[in-house]
Amino acid sequence: MKTIKKLTVDLGERSYPILIGEDLLQSPNVFSPYIHGKQILVVTNETIAPLYLQSVVDSLLAYQVDVVVLPDGEEYKTIETLGAIFDQLLLKSHNRTTTLIALGGGVVGDMTGFAAACYQRGVNFIQVPTTLLSQVDSSVGGKTAVNHPKGKNMIGAFYQPQCVIADTSTLNTLDDRQLRAGLAEVIKYGLIADAEFFFWLEDNVDDLLKRNSAALAYAIECSCQNKAKIVSQDEREGGIRAILNLGHTFGHAIETAQSYKDWLHGEAIAAGMIMAAELSCAMGWISSEDVDRTRELFLRCDLPVTPPAIMTHQKFVELMAVDKKVMDGSLRLVLLKAIGHAEVTANFDHEKLSDILRFYD
Amino acid sequence: MKTIKKLTVDLGERSYPILIGEDLLQSPNVFSPYIHGKQILVVTNETIAPLYLQSVVDSLLAYQVDVVVLPDGEEYKTIETLGAIFDQLLLKSHNRTTTLIALGGGVVGDMTGFAAACYQRGVNFIQVPTTLLSQVDSSVGGKTAVNHPKGKNMIGAFYQPQCVIADTSTLNTLDDRQLRAGLAEVIKYGLIADAEFFFWLEDNVDDLLKRNSAALAYAIECSCQNKAKIVSQDEREGGIRAILNLGHTFGHAIETAQSYKDWLHGEAIAAGMIMAAELSCAMGWISSEDVDRTRELFLRCDLPVTPPAIMTHQKFVELMAVDKKVMDGSLRLVLLKAIGHAEVTANFDHEKLSDILRFYD
Repeated sequence: MKTIKKLTVDLGERSYPILIGEDLLQSPNVFSPYIHGKQILVVTNETIAPLYLQSVVDSLLAYQVDVVVLPDGEEYKTIETLGAIFDQLLLKSHNRTTTLIALGGGVVGDMTGFAAACYQRGVNFIQVPTTLLSQVDSSVGGKTAVNHPKGKNMIGAFYQPQCVIADTSTLNTLDDRQLRAGLAEVIKYGLIADAEFFFWLEDNVDDLLKRNSAALAYAIECSCQNKAKIVSQDEREGGIRAILNLGHTFGHAIETAQSYKDWLHGEAIAAGMIMAAELSCAMGWISSEDVDRTRELFLRCDLPVTPPAIMTHQKFVELMAVDKKVMDGSLRLVLLKAIGHAEVTANFDHEKLSDILRFYD
Repeated sequence: MKTIKKLTVDLGERSYPILIGEDLLQSPNVFSPYIHGKQILVVTNETIAPLYLQSVVDSLLAYQVDVVVLPDGEEYKTIETLGAIFDQLLLKSHNRTTTLIALGGGVVGDMTGFAAACYQRGVNFIQVPTTLLSQVDSSVGGKTAVNHPKGKNMIGAFYQPQCVIADTSTLNTLDDRQLRAGLAEVIKYGLIADAEFFFWLEDNVDDLLKRNSAALAYAIECSCQNKAKIVSQDEREGGIRAILNLGHTFGHAIETAQSYKDWLHGEAIAAGMIMAAELSCAMGWISSEDVDRTRELFLRCDLPVTPPAIMTHQKFVELMAVDKKVMDGSLRLVLLKAIGHAEVTANFDHEKLSDILRFYD
């Protein structure tokens, strides 16, 4: 039997475990402790279905199992695609005791979670993330959503899963670009809350890129631990949880401008984190050496460190106006006080922000 | 100053008041205690907008006020119409501190509440019900939803408003059919939980039909008190709250079969409540005299007491299979133990249910 790590997201009666391990999807009964009814809908996409759907379905023989296969890509994370999930649930007469299983990356997880939050005003769901990004970030913490043409993740719910099952073996089939995009969120944890982990990443990023399984397992565990700790303190983002959005205000604007079709989420927030680091430096919060070593780590992962050409100053301003961290007209940003320490603030220098946005015009 | 009645829906930190009174929408500052940001979106429909929109907007001069006017009718209570609300929110850059105001009947209230539950994962909203049905039932208790072609209220959320403002003067502009449909829900409270109120209704229904304002105010207050008490005990319908659905399993099937275009909700559940009463009688729970006096009260309101011709036995069975009270394949029904006492049960006689469904074939 291979090692299974078990972490807990501590949210009172909504607490749940994160299981991390190799070949978890091959283990018998991995799902059954978390299923309370007789019906299951597995939601996956056309890329993942040929790889893992059969083994998931085979492990659920005791249940009524139905399946929805969605198209793959962030541009399909829409209210329209959500309709396909509801259609199948109703076509197969799923009732309030059904369980949805999200088998895929962040897009599948976000949509399945939101569908579970809304179907019959709330049914259970299980996250089975199959990408690095979803294993370290989007599957944990209960943020579910779909995108709107005018803003990323604008329509959604805080809704916690019954458990997260992160089978690290699924990363073997992940393409290189997806792996690197996931590393952007991994590095984020080092930057916002865990300097020691950031230094470990500087030392071990080459092993991660070579998919050394021990290194990946450690990076996933550290990331989930950091995320679980922050989410446990602030489930609905009243305060501290917002630091998880380092680089996301800029990154979401990039994704929206590209109609969610061009860069991956991890790529957009990598460029966004560098912009946040530059503003933090312009404010005198971190040194230019800290910005450089952050940029260097992203570059080693082949991640973008500047926004794409379409992002004019004007475009950034327009799209950042609907950021979810805006309060009564004031934009709030996540900035770095140090490597390993982020803060949310509305008290940044707006001129310096403009300088940075204009720099890329 | 006219009398304002204030009831409370007691839900801990999600508690909120129900204000009931004449000309409430004319009172200055009726909204301001319940608005915490600077932005407001008023959602209404094309019937209500010419009547009350201006006075609502005029009372909100201190805020950024935007408006969405939806088409009128249950057939528009869809995920597509919801999109019009999100479009406007994003077009006008509404942020997380915005407040949505639902100005209209149950359809407007259910959709606005659900939009508020989902926009940026949850913003505040206020219910301003303008029909009898929404004042006595749908605006209170936090059930929000849209319909699906295969099932009524199948996609939604439990999400409580900041307050409910029931201006009884708005009932003066309500058409007779809508008034009668509202009385179906009023009578429901007598049947499920308040025998004394049922007897009062038998004595006073003619005054209600004549829109005697004191009688209407009393009926609204009694209904809201009963509803608030039940919702306070069981916010998310784990048990007792389901009795509020007397007649709804049959009624929702009727509405779905009619594609939400023919009967009003109150009409469909009137027929449904008689079916539930007939089954209760067939089970020996209530007397045939109780069924007769219930039928008589509905008939005095010109409400239907039999399902429409399209409702075959087969159609009922198919549409009731996705009822939200189904648990692991077993249908549960709300039946009457007495006038003033309802229970939810899966232990009803399925043969007797079939007899009743077949009777109307």
